[in-house]
Amino acid sequence: MFETAELGRSIPKKDFEEKVESLRIELLSIQQELRKCDFPVIIVVAGVDGAGKGSTVNILNEWMDSRWIDNNAYVRQSDEESERPAYWRYWRDLPENGKIGIFLSSWYSAPFIDRVYDKIDQAEYDERLDRIKVFEKTLADDGALVLKFWMHLGKDAQKKRLKKLEKDEFQAWRVTETDWKHWRMYDTFVDAAERLIMRTSKGHAPWSIVEGADMRYRSITVAEQIRDAIKRHIEVRNTSKAAQAAFKKQHDAEAKPVKKKASKDAPVNTLPYATVLSTLDMSQSIEKEDYKKEIKALQGRLNLLARQATEKGISTVLVFEGSDAAGKGGNIRRITASLDARSYKVLPFAAPNDEERAHHYLWRFWRHMSRAGRITIFDRSWYGRVLVERVEGFAREEEWRRAYGEIVDFEDQIVDHGTVLLKFWIHIDPDEQLARFKAREATPWKQWKLTDEDWRNREKWAEYEEAVNDLVEKTSTSNAPWTLVEGNDKKFARVKVLRTVCDALEARLKQK
Amino acid sequence: MFETAELGRSIPKKDFEEKVESLRIELLSIQQELRKCDFPVIIVVAGVDGAGKGSTVNILNEWMDSRWIDNNAYVRQSDEESERPAYWRYWRDLPENGKIGIFLSSWYSAPFIDRVYDKIDQAEYDERLDRIKVFEKTLADDGALVLKFWMHLGKDAQKKRLKKLEKDEFQAWRVTETDWKHWRMYDTFVDAAERLIMRTSKGHAPWSIVEGADMRYRSITVAEQIRDAIKRHIEVRNTSKAAQAAFKKQHDAEAKPVKKKASKDAPVNTLPYATVLSTLDMSQSIEKEDYKKEIKALQGRLNLLARQATEKGISTVLVFEGSDAAGKGGNIRRITASLDARSYKVLPFAAPNDEERAHHYLWRFWRHMSRAGRITIFDRSWYGRVLVERVEGFAREEEWRRAYGEIVDFEDQIVDHGTVLLKFWIHIDPDEQLARFKAREATPWKQWKLTDEDWRNREKWAEYEEAVNDLVEKTSTSNAPWTLVEGNDKKFARVKVLRTVCDALEARLKQK
Repeated sequence: MFETAELGRSIPKKDFEEKVESLRIELLSIQQELRKCDFPVIIVVAGVDGAGKGSTVNILNEWMDSRWIDNNAYVRQSDEESERPAYWRYWRDLPENGKIGIFLSSWYSAPFIDRVYDKIDQAEYDERLDRIKVFEKTLADDGALVLKFWMHLGKDAQKKRLKKLEKDEFQAWRVTETDWKHWRMYDTFVDAAERLIMRTSKGHAPWSIVEGADMRYRSITVAEQIRDAIKRHIEVRNTSKAAQAAFKKQHDAEAKPVKKKASKDAPVNTLPYATVLSTLDMSQSIEKEDYKKEIKALQGRLNLLARQATEKGISTVLVFEGSDAAGKGGNIRRITASLDARSYKVLPFAAPNDEERAHHYLWRFWRHMSRAGRITIFDRSWYGRVLVERVEGFAREEEWRRAYGEIVDFEDQIVDHGTVLLKFWIHIDPDEQLARFKAREATPWKQWKLTDEDWRNREKWAEYEEAVNDLVEKTSTSNAPWTLVEGNDKKFARVKVLRTVCDALEARLKQK
Repeated sequence: MFETAELGRSIPKKDFEEKVESLRIELLSIQQELRKCDFPVIIVVAGVDGAGKGSTVNILNEWMDSRWIDNNAYVRQSDEESERPAYWRYWRDLPENGKIGIFLSSWYSAPFIDRVYDKIDQAEYDERLDRIKVFEKTLADDGALVLKFWMHLGKDAQKKRLKKLEKDEFQAWRVTETDWKHWRMYDTFVDAAERLIMRTSKGHAPWSIVEGADMRYRSITVAEQIRDAIKRHIEVRNTSKAAQAAFKKQHDAEAKPVKKKASKDAPVNTLPYATVLSTLDMSQSIEKEDYKKEIKALQGRLNLLARQATEKGISTVLVFEGSDAAGKGGNIRRITASLDARSYKVLPFAAPNDEERAHHYLWRFWRHMSRAGRITIFDRSWYGRVLVERVEGFAREEEWRRAYGEIVDFEDQIVDHGTVLLKFWIHIDPDEQLARFKAREATPWKQWKLTDEDWRNREKWAEYEEAVNDLVEKTSTSNAPWTLVEGNDKKFARVKVLRTVCDALEARLKQK
């Protein structure tokens, strides 16, 4: 695989200087074009020691306008990082649209080194490379341009380099025993590198192997590839955008819907076939006295379990979704009432702010991952992508369709980290919703809860029901199951939710 | 001071339940009103152990809608926190406008405990309390409602509480040797508390002492005070806003300026009196050959110094301000060219995004404070407040006038933390600027740099010059001096900037 990177290619100094002059201008102007684009550029620089990774990044920063470049390098995890799922630190450093993010010793570093030192076997190596594939695909699908450079240096060239450094009295300190050890392990490194490149070089995130021996050759090569890739990406994006716009225009013209103002009392459209929601027994309820007793017992139990979880550093993530007026807020309050205020956060999610909009839609949820031992309650969540954004058309079909896979992977990472993850869909039927809407209208201090949007959403009952059905089908995994809650009787729902949380925490605590 | 908090006040259960019912509705509806307001509510809960701090916070969360409350409690610093100025962690947790942030064991905690355990003397205690005063004033000036509750328990009541807990077989574990030790130190605690309250109770951030013995009394007292304070604050803000709007309308009507389109070649208005800028010798320059030699030597020196600083964990903050086309970008590039890309970040600042706008204007700079050993370069900075925002009227006069003090305090904290802080004003004269504007117009790949705004700013030359003069006068401290750079000759400027950075780093390294 690396034969072509051991050809001894180089660029004479004079040619280099000429090339650099025009290249810099081109890079700067492409950066300016990029700033107006709605995608980020993610550049991974990896490879062999001494093949010029650091120096290449420095040169890129020198040639380009470093104000629109974020450089990221990772050493050991800070304690804030190690208390969260492993990819948290990469997500928080992702560049926003229009910017370039360069990643040195990136997400490839740990799996690669672990494999070389035989800390993990081939199977686990493959698994971790697969996680990378999914991560990069997620970014690329959202429009990001992902470029990866593997800087290579042959075995002889490495030896020559180390010898030369050792002879230089000012540089000799740079050569350590580890360097020679790595050199003797050359074949092991090459094997691991080959596998890494083979498994993770995809059309949307290709590896480019660069011969690293000559500083001028490798700098020019990398910079030119970046320039061309950005230029091409901008063109492709523009073309596909134009096509989409044309398609949408035609589609809109053909299918102009007749807008009618639905009467508030009109029956909602429901689906003619069964869904997971239509199978729920919505008549379930609980007596007031039983409720009081149960809720008190459950809250005491939750308090105790939550304390134990905090002590052991086990985090919990609770997701609440549901129809409007289903009682998400009331359920959340019954949970927080039994918790210490220092141990939880309730995060209500509405439309993203502009910094959030300039990132992948999952970014704003990643940034709220809590430190160890806390409970994070999401009042609406990343499922907005496949609910409101799907139904209202805020996300294009290919966007919300691939979101299911992205979400499953995201949740896998949360659970892999040891976090308890529970997801609740609180459900009410159309009649109950109407009754609650009317009650809200009649209660002065509840009126704010009811907006025109609620009435409009109600008209799309069938679409939402279909979306919920798909969501359960595609994202209810054994790791992160959905709990469907029959919410017509508020008391019944609260008991069910609390009990589910308690049972899950208890099970998790027994494991550790 | 605490006599009034030892009266044995309590509320009978029946009264409590009645009160709570209406109180909760009022709290919920005031929260909804608050959500629409352009200020945050900051609530500090502090006081004696066992006086119900934690339980009060829990009850507030239960009574209100916890989705619009952020709870914050601080234990030991994480390593990410300890590598930044001490207040970074409070700044990053400040609630955004419309939200309530509750702070337990807040900024008061460390100074208080340090004083009680005699780790600091009275003078240092006062100094640290003064820092708190400035911090809270900064927030209050920006519109924040700051409320502070000191939960009190008399010496006898404390003893009774501990004895009672010890007798209860389920609660006995809660009483530790430390509790009794603290009880014996009661007078020391009271002394430190009195001083703390005296020195930091201000009209804009008052302390309220609450008798903590009775759960019902203290919960109702705190909640009612919060309700009333928020209500009052909303009223005051609305009134003053209406007055401001009326004033502005009248003012605008009286002083309608005649808008004339200035010719691009017209001479700019300059001030008839001397400023710090007019005293600069703008004719200074350097020969090309000397420049090449000097810049090479300085870059080598900087590279070495920066490595040493990184090793020792010394951070550097460089601020670049200057007239349009003064060459900030070129200066920054000469610095970054000699640095390792992993060790620095260049942060260009333009208008704030909407999350930033919902916080104090300094918040967006606090959030970019780097971890230890890094160099952060601000391309424009917090000085925007007293430059563009002042001249263009984006900030009201009282806002930019108090910004000088806020900035000095902010920079003090950076320097106190051990960070090297340097500020550069790169200056060019009007003729040089005109020449550069025209050159930009003529160079295709530089045209993006020149906007209509640049031409408009040029018309306000005199206003900007005055703003710069004030800025130097009010914010050039020995801790964080301004370096005025004669920028007509780009080469001269670059050498001066690089040398200043090197000298400062060298001096700092010698200290440690």
